[in-house]
Amino acid sequence: MNRLEVFMQETAADVEKRLDYFLPYADMRPEILHQAMRHSILGGGKRLRPCLVLAAFEAAGGPEPDRPRTLDAACAIELLHCYSLIHDDLPSMDNDSLRRNRLSCHKAFGEAVAILAGDALQALAFRVMAMASGPLAGPAVAELAAAAGSTGMVGGQALDIEAAGTGQTLETIEWIDRWKTGSILACCCRTGAIFAGAGDEITAALTAYGETIGVLYQISDDILDLTADVKKLGKTPGKDAVAGKLTYPAARGIEKAREMVAEKCSLAKSVLQRFGKEALYLRLLADFLRDRANPDFRSRP
Amino acid sequence: MNRLEVFMQETAADVEKRLDYFLPYADMRPEILHQAMRHSILGGGKRLRPCLVLAAFEAAGGPEPDRPRTLDAACAIELLHCYSLIHDDLPSMDNDSLRRNRLSCHKAFGEAVAILAGDALQALAFRVMAMASGPLAGPAVAELAAAAGSTGMVGGQALDIEAAGTGQTLETIEWIDRWKTGSILACCCRTGAIFAGAGDEITAALTAYGETIGVLYQISDDILDLTADVKKLGKTPGKDAVAGKLTYPAARGIEKAREMVAEKCSLAKSVLQRFGKEALYLRLLADFLRDRANPDFRSRP
Repeated sequence: MNRLEVFMQETAADVEKRLDYFLPYADMRPEILHQAMRHSILGGGKRLRPCLVLAAFEAAGGPEPDRPRTLDAACAIELLHCYSLIHDDLPSMDNDSLRRNRLSCHKAFGEAVAILAGDALQALAFRVMAMASGPLAGPAVAELAAAAGSTGMVGGQALDIEAAGTGQTLETIEWIDRWKTGSILACCCRTGAIFAGAGDEITAALTAYGETIGVLYQISDDILDLTADVKKLGKTPGKDAVAGKLTYPAARGIEKAREMVAEKCSLAKSVLQRFGKEALYLRLLADFLRDRANPDFRSRP
Repeated sequence: MNRLEVFMQETAADVEKRLDYFLPYADMRPEILHQAMRHSILGGGKRLRPCLVLAAFEAAGGPEPDRPRTLDAACAIELLHCYSLIHDDLPSMDNDSLRRNRLSCHKAFGEAVAILAGDALQALAFRVMAMASGPLAGPAVAELAAAAGSTGMVGGQALDIEAAGTGQTLETIEWIDRWKTGSILACCCRTGAIFAGAGDEITAALTAYGETIGVLYQISDDILDLTADVKKLGKTPGKDAVAGKLTYPAARGIEKAREMVAEKCSLAKSVLQRFGKEALYLRLLADFLRDRANPDFRSRP
């Protein structure tokens, strides 16, 4: 394993432990709701967003004693992300029955419970963020709420659904990519900066990095949707074409999309020039996100 | 108009103005999402929860200069309440097409937009709470998140759906009433206490009051569902029976339910004995909630 792989695996293990701690027990009333929440949160994913929070915290020179509460803040963002996946998979949205190689929440627990599990996870995300951040709760919660709201993640999903099947333009695609994915990834970086006590310039650089890899990530995701098989993807591939969604690779071709991914990766790393080796993981993460859209890239164990 | 009516009307007007300020414009992208959010928030309801926050703030001796930000915190709870109504009305939940005498959100905007509008309103609720509370953001946000989550409001809705049609017991009904409605009403009182800088004893008394009128409110709501017509109710009456939901009045009869309401009202006022005239509105609110379940009670203009 290379250094990034070690960092990501260790972070994923730490995140899993804390998420298990934050989630109510499966035998606690209402049992089906807590089972659904646990089903959708535990045992899955690369935990990319928590990795970003901790990598940004490190890049901004965050002190070691503040790392545990930064990990909790990272878990809050992961909880928010997982709620959005549950709602995105619903029949009235993307209607997907597979997520992280198992049944999506509404397939396993029914639609009503899935909606409520998502709702409860969003509330839990803000609870964990408020508890983790202490005196920083004001900015930390406001940041997460703004990234999650109608001019952030949820707004991007609304644009995405609205645009499906109609005459989309590349401009709409850029809005969707920036809002749906970019806002939360930028929020990860800003949260790392807040918990590190970073100044405005450092925060601005980390924000620019986060926004850029947000677009990079969404384009590489759309490439994977076109090229990967179900096992590698962990969810149903080819969905965008079926739903009539225009994506960057569909509009400009896969090769052009890979070039765009490489450009965004360079751009993301260029805004990190002011940082020294403390930004190592952020640089490696940009490369990782670029490479996952390559045909010969294999998912990590 | 009596004093409570003046207080409630003035509060409702203040809340309406601030909610209009917090909500993105209807012509802001994604337009349909912002229209749906505005449709479900503005121009409706008694704004009972904000009235409770401000009445509790006053009972706890909150200083006048802190009233504006307490009003904003009250708006945050109203945003959260309105999101829950949107999701409760969805086809997979209570499937209601009428709310506050107009189309429910999914009837007017479709199911996907309604789910997303609810999601965005929950995020906005936490954003407004974080911005209103400044150094108090930690406890204020954690309080709201706990009341909204899987062992609060959302947990109550899950229990309610789970219990419908099965062999419910009075014990289950009590859990549902306490969680679904009581947790948010208690949260209103605790939020008023937090913003007033109240000590533990005052906060505990206000919490007990809030929990008690939460149950009172839910039982009187269930009585209205059985007895009121659609115009007075602003939503479809008789739904509980159709859905096979056991409620307190259905289980014990309407007269016994009205007795229970009167008992809870006395209990709520008795925990306010330590307070002087600064708790006037809390006392009047308890009476108001008791009286609305009476057959000769008429809704205010």
